[in-house]
Amino acid sequence: MANIPLPETNLPRIVIIGGGFAGIELIKSLKKEKVQIILLDRHNYHTFQPLLYQVATGGLEPDSIATPFRTIFEGYSNLFFRMAEVKTIHREAKCVSTNIGDVKYDYLVIATGSRTNYFGIEGLRESAMPLKTIPQALDLRSLMLQNFEKALLISDLEERNSRLNIVVVGGGPTGVEISGALAELKTHVLPHDYPELDFRKMSIYLIEANERVLAGMSEWSSRKSKKFLENLGVEVWTGISVKNYEGRKVLLSNDKTLQSHTLIWTAGVMGNLVDGLADITVRGNRIDVDEFLSVRNSTDIFALGDCAGIKSDTYPNGLPGVAPVAVQQGQYLGKRLKAIFRNKEVKPFKYTNKGTMATVGRNKAVVDMKGFHTQGFFAWWIWMFVHIMYLVSFRNRIVVLVNWVWHYISYDKAIRLIIRPYIKG
Amino acid sequence: MANIPLPETNLPRIVIIGGGFAGIELIKSLKKEKVQIILLDRHNYHTFQPLLYQVATGGLEPDSIATPFRTIFEGYSNLFFRMAEVKTIHREAKCVSTNIGDVKYDYLVIATGSRTNYFGIEGLRESAMPLKTIPQALDLRSLMLQNFEKALLISDLEERNSRLNIVVVGGGPTGVEISGALAELKTHVLPHDYPELDFRKMSIYLIEANERVLAGMSEWSSRKSKKFLENLGVEVWTGISVKNYEGRKVLLSNDKTLQSHTLIWTAGVMGNLVDGLADITVRGNRIDVDEFLSVRNSTDIFALGDCAGIKSDTYPNGLPGVAPVAVQQGQYLGKRLKAIFRNKEVKPFKYTNKGTMATVGRNKAVVDMKGFHTQGFFAWWIWMFVHIMYLVSFRNRIVVLVNWVWHYISYDKAIRLIIRPYIKG
Repeated sequence: MANIPLPETNLPRIVIIGGGFAGIELIKSLKKEKVQIILLDRHNYHTFQPLLYQVATGGLEPDSIATPFRTIFEGYSNLFFRMAEVKTIHREAKCVSTNIGDVKYDYLVIATGSRTNYFGIEGLRESAMPLKTIPQALDLRSLMLQNFEKALLISDLEERNSRLNIVVVGGGPTGVEISGALAELKTHVLPHDYPELDFRKMSIYLIEANERVLAGMSEWSSRKSKKFLENLGVEVWTGISVKNYEGRKVLLSNDKTLQSHTLIWTAGVMGNLVDGLADITVRGNRIDVDEFLSVRNSTDIFALGDCAGIKSDTYPNGLPGVAPVAVQQGQYLGKRLKAIFRNKEVKPFKYTNKGTMATVGRNKAVVDMKGFHTQGFFAWWIWMFVHIMYLVSFRNRIVVLVNWVWHYISYDKAIRLIIRPYIKG
Repeated sequence: MANIPLPETNLPRIVIIGGGFAGIELIKSLKKEKVQIILLDRHNYHTFQPLLYQVATGGLEPDSIATPFRTIFEGYSNLFFRMAEVKTIHREAKCVSTNIGDVKYDYLVIATGSRTNYFGIEGLRESAMPLKTIPQALDLRSLMLQNFEKALLISDLEERNSRLNIVVVGGGPTGVEISGALAELKTHVLPHDYPELDFRKMSIYLIEANERVLAGMSEWSSRKSKKFLENLGVEVWTGISVKNYEGRKVLLSNDKTLQSHTLIWTAGVMGNLVDGLADITVRGNRIDVDEFLSVRNSTDIFALGDCAGIKSDTYPNGLPGVAPVAVQQGQYLGKRLKAIFRNKEVKPFKYTNKGTMATVGRNKAVVDMKGFHTQGFFAWWIWMFVHIMYLVSFRNRIVVLVNWVWHYISYDKAIRLIIRPYIKG
């Protein structure tokens, strides 16, 4: 394929694949550097993934958590964005192949994030709903609403309830947060929307294979969040995994089955890799990088964020796939590249865990910070403040805040729209 | 097909097809009436069509101009909504067939609105972009952004400019308003987004077959709005129609051609009818109704809004397909049905034209009211006030207002997102 047209230059060219948290922080830190940066992403916008679950549950418009790259990087004279899906990396030729053409690089940064991992269970791949992108969040929103509309047409009670029930698999922050949001919908919204349906019969299950939810947080936060969820009516089942699902029946590891037309899968991710990296892949389909974020045995390729396989003493299985890790790695690589251009040295990357948090329902959260835990209403304020501050554009901050205030006053989740009906398969 | 499950009742059943302005006003006026109302619509939300063009041009989220029917009709104990696509009306059997089953009626109200009319030109049907629904507005937004992204990959200048050019056909309010919004994008937004493209080469054409734009308004407003558009850089060509289009070249009635990958078609609508009405259809695919909005020679079927063919002395070709007509007809039929139930008489329907208006660009509008015209900045305030007040939910009013204030301060149209890429065909 032909090369993608790009301005000719004598400056070093850095090609970045993926405009997630890591990619955009790296570009920001190189704003004034004399380089040519090419950002490749299959979307024309950055997604604020931590709030995807609010899009799926009708709390936020998709547009409020997405920011076009061209808005973020307005005024960056060294940045060239191309909307492209990367197919293969040719390391010998220092070239990346995409659906719109090839692009050569001097330095390559792989920041492709993670994708859903179904651990080889075919039924899940076919019928479970993932929650990693905005189109997926909209599909989930449509599917749940379509199921409620269909329930009205069904007289068989068991079949009808299986349209109402929702099974969330995976007790990490996403699973906990969406379970809480669904429980609030069940209590405050759906009975008004559908007076013909009996939502007391609706069950929301949260299934976690570990012995506790939020296994990445303190035991205290796990206990508290489980309690919050149970108070909201969520059935939290820990130490249990899903063996199979064919679109209606969920088969569990304890050989019980649950009836549900909606299974939300947040139980596993793997590096979202492209072709040409098989020999440098480690556990979890991540790329093997050293403590400077260089790909092993390479001087011109780096990996960042969810797709980078980097361990530390605190995290022997690799750093968690969360936004703060990606942000810090993007900033670190910016510094390091500047040092490379000036023949200087930098210290190895070190992740500083400033805290982890998850919200449960309409006004509770759990927050772990260094030597400090908090839970409940105050934690929820911290959660809101942090999420508003990290949102990428000022307009998005205002619109999200307006929606949150509105939900809080009205108990409403206004955006119960089926814009594009979800069609399975 | 089986009947759609609905609560059994001895009350008269009114089936309403379509939840546009006419349908929802009718339901509101029957809130306390002892009837069983069945609302059928293929979407689960009401669309505020007058602002669709702002969704297409990145100014508003789709969610801000849509309101779920279940939100609008919360607390209506006599209303049952079913999301369904109506296929056929069986007048003899007093029954409506839909994709989810059949439903019998005592009274039937057809309020199916209008759909795009390409006047039999096959090329337009295949390649032009209509603007009647939210998915269509999102497709148009995606297509324009995709064309700009593709223009970056094209070295041939003519081919590149044809990706930038936009041809709007139809000089009614929608055509005028979207042309103005596109001109603002061209001036204030796109050059910042795409510094690599020369947007001085981008042409925005507004093609109108009549001798003037806004032919439904005063000549004074036509002249003013044309001048506003030309000041913004829109090429307004009146007295010219489109003969054909195959996705890239627009062939005009004066045998000139324009090069554009985007043709927005707002030049014609026709009644959006279902099967079973052919013998009672009049000009424009509308339903033949008498001055009481009863379908000709029928006592149990009514038609409202864009799909009702009703003439008056002022409108010998039929009433215009605008929201105020639909709203007044919905309210009128509410009164009339109540009178029918009580064996009373009502006067014939009479449309009161309270005024017409259109906005041009970021802070201008033209307004015609009885014995009163105004234009420019003051008219724009009237336009904004009226549109905010008519929006269906309080949340939507706030969110739209926040976005408008934001655009006005920042010159930004933030929502330049390709959420679902548009694929032709």
